[in-house]
Amino acid sequence: MTGKHLYREVADTIITLVDNGTYRVGEKVPSIRELSRQAQVSVNTVKIAYSYLEDRSIIEARPQSGYYVCPRHLNPPSEPKPQPEMSSPLSISKSNLVVQVMRDVLDEDKIQFGAAIPAPDLIPHKKLSRIIGSETRRRGSEATSYMMPPGNKRLRALIAKRMVKAGCTIHPDEIIITSGASEAVFLGLQAVCQPGDTIAVGSPIYFNFVQMFNLLGVKVIEIPTSPTHGLHLESLRVVLAKNSIACCLVVTNFDNPLGSCMSDERKRELVQLLSEAGVPLIEDDINGDLSFSDDRPTVAKSWDRCDNVLLCSSFSKTLAPGFRLGYIAPGRFHEKVLHRKIVSNIATASPSQLAIAEFLENGGYEHHLRSIRKAYGKKVTQASAAIVENFPSSTRLTSPNGGFTLWVELAPEVDCLRLYTEAVKEKITIAPGSLFSLTGNFSHCFRLNCAFWAEETRWAIETLGQIVFQLMEEQK
Amino acid sequence: MTGKHLYREVADTIITLVDNGTYRVGEKVPSIRELSRQAQVSVNTVKIAYSYLEDRSIIEARPQSGYYVCPRHLNPPSEPKPQPEMSSPLSISKSNLVVQVMRDVLDEDKIQFGAAIPAPDLIPHKKLSRIIGSETRRRGSEATSYMMPPGNKRLRALIAKRMVKAGCTIHPDEIIITSGASEAVFLGLQAVCQPGDTIAVGSPIYFNFVQMFNLLGVKVIEIPTSPTHGLHLESLRVVLAKNSIACCLVVTNFDNPLGSCMSDERKRELVQLLSEAGVPLIEDDINGDLSFSDDRPTVAKSWDRCDNVLLCSSFSKTLAPGFRLGYIAPGRFHEKVLHRKIVSNIATASPSQLAIAEFLENGGYEHHLRSIRKAYGKKVTQASAAIVENFPSSTRLTSPNGGFTLWVELAPEVDCLRLYTEAVKEKITIAPGSLFSLTGNFSHCFRLNCAFWAEETRWAIETLGQIVFQLMEEQK
Repeated sequence: MTGKHLYREVADTIITLVDNGTYRVGEKVPSIRELSRQAQVSVNTVKIAYSYLEDRSIIEARPQSGYYVCPRHLNPPSEPKPQPEMSSPLSISKSNLVVQVMRDVLDEDKIQFGAAIPAPDLIPHKKLSRIIGSETRRRGSEATSYMMPPGNKRLRALIAKRMVKAGCTIHPDEIIITSGASEAVFLGLQAVCQPGDTIAVGSPIYFNFVQMFNLLGVKVIEIPTSPTHGLHLESLRVVLAKNSIACCLVVTNFDNPLGSCMSDERKRELVQLLSEAGVPLIEDDINGDLSFSDDRPTVAKSWDRCDNVLLCSSFSKTLAPGFRLGYIAPGRFHEKVLHRKIVSNIATASPSQLAIAEFLENGGYEHHLRSIRKAYGKKVTQASAAIVENFPSSTRLTSPNGGFTLWVELAPEVDCLRLYTEAVKEKITIAPGSLFSLTGNFSHCFRLNCAFWAEETRWAIETLGQIVFQLMEEQK
Repeated sequence: MTGKHLYREVADTIITLVDNGTYRVGEKVPSIRELSRQAQVSVNTVKIAYSYLEDRSIIEARPQSGYYVCPRHLNPPSEPKPQPEMSSPLSISKSNLVVQVMRDVLDEDKIQFGAAIPAPDLIPHKKLSRIIGSETRRRGSEATSYMMPPGNKRLRALIAKRMVKAGCTIHPDEIIITSGASEAVFLGLQAVCQPGDTIAVGSPIYFNFVQMFNLLGVKVIEIPTSPTHGLHLESLRVVLAKNSIACCLVVTNFDNPLGSCMSDERKRELVQLLSEAGVPLIEDDINGDLSFSDDRPTVAKSWDRCDNVLLCSSFSKTLAPGFRLGYIAPGRFHEKVLHRKIVSNIATASPSQLAIAEFLENGGYEHHLRSIRKAYGKKVTQASAAIVENFPSSTRLTSPNGGFTLWVELAPEVDCLRLYTEAVKEKITIAPGSLFSLTGNFSHCFRLNCAFWAEETRWAIETLGQIVFQLMEEQK
């Protein structure tokens, strides 16, 4: 055996031990000196073997500590193939499955990998309950009266202040408080669309949006979205040229479900493209506060020079979904949105408005964000590693820099509706990919909510992997 | 002078003193003996004079106490004239005025006779704020998580229990929690109507409903409603025979704005008529808990044998409008309503659901109701008396047995939009009658929210009366 063969032999041994789970992701492998002794090879041979393994991202060196098994990275999901025929609008049929997936959250016995709800242990329950009690008491009749749209003034001022971090200068009076971001987007759609209109939307699409389109009687053109770069602008350009589009709906930051974050340059181009075409942009920024780094990404509305962007967001992912507190800055559609909000349900609950305002001003929201960003980053990394370990190697996986969902693309023959059905039997929920499109394109994909990842739920990822293997076996 | 003339002279003196405000409504007039001495007439003459005044409801005897000035009763509003041509559906144009009237409540400097908001001093602020704090703390993550539709189980059970008092047996699982009764009705309409459909609705119509019809793109046939008996069933029968009607919307108890309460017999007939025609009934029972007597009126849904009634209500009039807590029991449209609720805003705020449930079970809701029913009854009586005193005698006025609004019908030439404009200048809001119809029929009417009646706001009724006199003067 030559020296060259020897280092490969050592490296292959390590790979086998990693593959069979002797060394798991994140665990330390023997030091160079230890392995040299154990394998009875020279220190230099082990050094070359480890360098070989490092280059292949199988292990990584940590300064002052040693070598550790890397999280294995699966390929990212396929880049979409913009299709020439994509400009034919699609009609929508309602899916009871969406209701089912969303109502799965009621079942506390299930592992909540389906709906994109935050981790209960990352919600500041105690502080929120203390604040809602004290604010409701302190504000007297204000807390029990209608807090008519646009909503609590202090809350709107605090939201406007926060938007500065996203590069966006909005006057508090431009903001309307809503019952969550869903209502914000739904009101925005109602303000800009008529039944029969066609709208352009990044695909895959958050499934509740698909249901909104259905209720509003609008048609949809799905714009391919890259897991890396976000909405495919060249495709949008083609669609705008060929169709009469009533509006464009995009999740710009840590897209739901793909996790992609558009660059500033792309956001600027998106806004310009749409304003030139006279097509309003509904921007959903619900995950904007959840960047894993401390850089808060910008919103596209920062580049909006003609009040053409309806910016929507909420505190459902960062503070408390149950408080139902979101907002919309609807630009030139302000009066229309305001009117629709009043007609739909008059106002957003006053105690929720008071509590979130107080939390934003005196609750340590930034500190809280730093802590949950870190926690979600870790959960996403660990859940990714568990998928790598437990799923077939043909699996492709997003690697988002924010939010807390993963988009998993399985081999084309795997039907994720069956995966959903089988998983529910095991008390695990997922969000099947077919819900995220009208094209039938994503039936082999699913979205995984990593907020419920923990060592104690590792078994659920393992179970999902086993089901996927079974489904693939059946297809052979 | 004959004795006959003498007693009339005495009586006329009293009438003059009442008319010029020397003796105000509710005040004691001199005793028989006193007046006999003062007027130097026989005790018998005063007795005859007082009997004459009693017969005419100018004064009333109170046992062991004496005689008091009666509230003067104006005529009830005109009974509607069912018109042969009423079966042509009307289209709707949006009114910014509605938004204005509803947003008037934001202006604390204004006397709130416009929007039908409850009296701040009749809202149990302290108890509610204590409960929302303690429940949110006690329920932990439940309070901050999505409380997915149909909503909190305990709350639904308590509502179902309350409905028994209204003669109606509903299973808690038939109930869906909403963000107020407005959302309940709006979701109900969405579940049963398509754009272009025609719906039948009691007229005058609560103005926010008119806006809903507008947003939904439905046409409307207004069914005449009697201030005494409620919806005119014979007219409805004709409309059903001649038109394809998608649904019928009726406020059965203490109608908004007329205050009429349908009898059990009429409710039964309404339900039968509509179920035979296969037309769903959306029943708004928002004022059902606010009977001035302790008899809780039934709901029409009590007679519903084929799940054809969508019963809507809320706690916005009795507990806290700002909590945005209502419900709908949508019968056979359950799945549709549930789906629309989830799509529109996912769920109703959890702290509101928890707080209202706790209040219903342990907050003394029945005791609270007894106290506010009495208070609202008094406010409505006193506000009525103030209108009688300060408005032209051509004014007609409802005399509701529940709720807290009055419907005021002025001489046909008075334009209540001008009354609204002039009143707002004096920091008084009202709800102009033209908002309550598409026909233009009620331009000389307005709705008055008596919840804000108090001795301190008497000046506002006086001012309204003066404006009405001025407007009539201008017309001459």
